[in-house]
Amino acid sequence: MKKIALAVAIAAASSSLMAQSLGKPEDQVRWRQSAYQTMAWNMTRIKVNLESNYNKDQVAQAANVIQAIANSGMGSLYAPGTEKAKGWEPTHAKPELFTDKEGVGKVAVAFNKEANELAKLAAGGDAAAVKAQFGKLTEACKACHKDYRVEEKH
Amino acid sequence: MKKIALAVAIAAASSSLMAQSLGKPEDQVRWRQSAYQTMAWNMTRIKVNLESNYNKDQVAQAANVIQAIANSGMGSLYAPGTEKAKGWEPTHAKPELFTDKEGVGKVAVAFNKEANELAKLAAGGDAAAVKAQFGKLTEACKACHKDYRVEEKH
Repeated sequence: MKKIALAVAIAAASSSLMAQSLGKPEDQVRWRQSAYQTMAWNMTRIKVNLESNYNKDQVAQAANVIQAIANSGMGSLYAPGTEKAKGWEPTHAKPELFTDKEGVGKVAVAFNKEANELAKLAAGGDAAAVKAQFGKLTEACKACHKDYRVEEKH
Repeated sequence: MKKIALAVAIAAASSSLMAQSLGKPEDQVRWRQSAYQTMAWNMTRIKVNLESNYNKDQVAQAANVIQAIANSGMGSLYAPGTEKAKGWEPTHAKPELFTDKEGVGKVAVAFNKEANELAKLAAGGDAAAVKAQFGKLTEACKACHKDYRVEEKH
């Protein structure tokens, strides 16, 4: 029940409804790893744009991807049975991700808020504002990784 | 030069600008495989919703992810050097994907059009319209796979 409650908490952070849980555990882990990597690609693109030759359209495209994934109800990919499953590679999720529903809810809500704000600012095209918000989103990512992810370099 | 022209053609299909090319070949292949898997997850979600218990919010979330990725300028992930690179797994791209710029441009434009239309209909919530459009998007995916992807089951 705790795990179900957790999934509800994560889903609730990005949606008012619990997403239907789909796929085998290895599918769910592969899909969530893919979603994080897709966000990582787009975070990298925004970083490079902020460092040189800021291109408003590219940054907006990248921020839209991150926002859409942040609001996609990824909580449904953490169903019971996925705690130690292997997707593209073994999951990096710490056991706490499946038990600390209150803490996970907090970092999930913060992440969504910062991702939505980044997409809004990116559409506006103010590079300085995007830079400041990109910093806030990066911190939101790190806050979750710190407590709930076994860090590992590719 | 053909490869650069191809990348421009793909990028142009989803953006008016060539996205900056980032990362090593293995990063680019991992990122593009991740983006396709993220779309596959969301296509699966929409399919399940169409088959039973249609949930407007979930379908809209899923369609938004597909749309955002379709418009993200993925062409920048097909830079020279990625033709045979390994990301999460060896690339499934056929050599033609890097040479047939006209054909690739056509399937890319069609894919974007159908993805944008699906997101629009999903926001409206008319399940029958979403079902018809989901079929069109599926055909657009298959049209590209047929000519440019070495099919393989997970």
